[in-house]
Amino acid sequence: MSKFWSPIVSRLTPYTPGEQPKIANLVKLNTNENPYGPSPRAVEASAREVGDSLRLYPNPDAEPLKLAIARRHAADGITAREVFVGNGSDEVLAHAFHALLQHGKPILFPDITYSFYPTYSGLYQVEYRAVPLADDFTLRTDDYLGHGDAIGGIIFPNPNAPTGCLLPLAEVERIVQGNPQRVVVVDEAYIDFGGDSAIPLVQRYPNLLVVQTLSKSRSLAGMRVGFAIGHADLIDALERVKNSFNSYPLDRPAIAGATAAIEDEEYFRKTCGMVIASREKLVASLERLGFEVLPSAANFVFARHPQHDAAKLAATLRGDGIIVRHFTSARINQFLRITIGTDEACGTLVDALKRHLA
Amino acid sequence: MSKFWSPIVSRLTPYTPGEQPKIANLVKLNTNENPYGPSPRAVEASAREVGDSLRLYPNPDAEPLKLAIARRHAADGITAREVFVGNGSDEVLAHAFHALLQHGKPILFPDITYSFYPTYSGLYQVEYRAVPLADDFTLRTDDYLGHGDAIGGIIFPNPNAPTGCLLPLAEVERIVQGNPQRVVVVDEAYIDFGGDSAIPLVQRYPNLLVVQTLSKSRSLAGMRVGFAIGHADLIDALERVKNSFNSYPLDRPAIAGATAAIEDEEYFRKTCGMVIASREKLVASLERLGFEVLPSAANFVFARHPQHDAAKLAATLRGDGIIVRHFTSARINQFLRITIGTDEACGTLVDALKRHLA
Repeated sequence: MSKFWSPIVSRLTPYTPGEQPKIANLVKLNTNENPYGPSPRAVEASAREVGDSLRLYPNPDAEPLKLAIARRHAADGITAREVFVGNGSDEVLAHAFHALLQHGKPILFPDITYSFYPTYSGLYQVEYRAVPLADDFTLRTDDYLGHGDAIGGIIFPNPNAPTGCLLPLAEVERIVQGNPQRVVVVDEAYIDFGGDSAIPLVQRYPNLLVVQTLSKSRSLAGMRVGFAIGHADLIDALERVKNSFNSYPLDRPAIAGATAAIEDEEYFRKTCGMVIASREKLVASLERLGFEVLPSAANFVFARHPQHDAAKLAATLRGDGIIVRHFTSARINQFLRITIGTDEACGTLVDALKRHLA
Repeated sequence: MSKFWSPIVSRLTPYTPGEQPKIANLVKLNTNENPYGPSPRAVEASAREVGDSLRLYPNPDAEPLKLAIARRHAADGITAREVFVGNGSDEVLAHAFHALLQHGKPILFPDITYSFYPTYSGLYQVEYRAVPLADDFTLRTDDYLGHGDAIGGIIFPNPNAPTGCLLPLAEVERIVQGNPQRVVVVDEAYIDFGGDSAIPLVQRYPNLLVVQTLSKSRSLAGMRVGFAIGHADLIDALERVKNSFNSYPLDRPAIAGATAAIEDEEYFRKTCGMVIASREKLVASLERLGFEVLPSAANFVFARHPQHDAAKLAATLRGDGIIVRHFTSARINQFLRITIGTDEACGTLVDALKRHLA
């Protein structure tokens, strides 16, 4: 705390990202990275931008990327006017809090969810109410209905993090439809691993903003690209905030690489399929070891063992060079969040667990 | 305007960056890009990060880059604790407005200056007073002294933009020393082209924040990297805001490329020297053509012709495929801001001007 700080600074509780350890040869299953590299076409396109052209500013609107995203969703009536892009979905979400959720009324999100939401709320002084998930960690649609004008908006991830649980699209639609006065942000960071995106609803609901990232299913966590799709009015609000913050949040290699990644549908489908297959195998193995595993539609599983303390298990695995994520909040402190690695990495984890649980 | 917008959104006046035209073979002298490519070592380092490792998140603290910047300024007592990095100096400046200049009191900056400052003020609801430059477009130090606790902070570019005029370091120090209660942000985007940085003052003044960019003198506009150097308390405030906004604003290729660029002192000195030499030649040529050119310590010049309207000249040059920047604000609407290109590009410009002024 310093006299030079703006009053807001001391009230912030910054987000803590998953550890990025510097030790080599770890089995790193803690930050939901994709075990496979990005599309070779993305790597090539990105590499072409690494050279003398770096002396020039990027396209301030990242136009080729917006066009590629719009083309992919053209069947749902999406044009580049309905697309916003940013430096990771974290930046997109931050702008959404600032531009669309700040109405002097509390917003709603689940009590167990992406832990960046309370942080954004602090940064933009948005009040919030954390709505408890059901005992089985599913989101109860009815909790998000009937608030009328008393709320400032709604945001939730689908599938939810860190549970991995999916809300069926019909239930997402009920929430969007039931809150026509307010923006509903559906944060689909993990949707490509088993859920139905709400993007097809965008044309019907001017209050729906769908946020996605290229960090997970497109394997570009190291490139920082995320996007939002919604009615042009919502996108305009995001653009106005972005253009009051930083004209060029995406650099030249990122725009080129992300564009090519979006265009390589075949590679995307193949690698998502591989992750899903590994997930199903890992779930079966964990269940055989006595774990309770929440149904996951993501590239991670959320699991607890009735006889073993999660914090201790995480520490033991770390001793083996295997890193998983453990959260300390009350309702979930007996769970481990385990990223789906390659079958080999998952096998190493299962073998270690077998030894320790025996 | 939409009912879904946060109240702040409709009050914003977003920044308009210089045009990034899509036409090939233009002589592009409008956005102060470096005519030379980045250090070959930067290109190599960046290229090494374009591959499978993109599946992994970047170092959230961009630690290698902070260390490289600290090493370069070790003689001034700078360690990584006194360094903040962001997605271009625009992002760094935005966070500085949010974290350090928002005190419910007006901040001061020159009436003619980087036009993003009023935009940031709007975004973070910081009141400001635009302090008129002297008639010769220099900053009058005394205007920034004697305000005591009545102001929320001070920010100015040095050299100033778009004038290119340099405030001597002793005058910068007077402003910093005269405002011990408030943060003074010195925005040194162009300092490497002829000025003395205020970084050596950081150890003595806990209220000084120096902001620099790799977009100009390091030729990495397309990579989006900027940094700030200041007392660890100021850096902490920026980190707290950054970590409440986006954990990883710099991607892997950017961290690696920027680190190598900072380390390649020889290339940096050589190319800055070339730009400075071209500037001096261009100034002489423009003066021979009757232009009044403000003394520039930047990689651009700000020039007016007593007999020729600036807007018309800019339009005429555009017809020749030469783009320079023209601002419409009252005091400067007869000036052109011309980026220093290669000697060849400057020669093309001078030849065109010769034809049109004849």
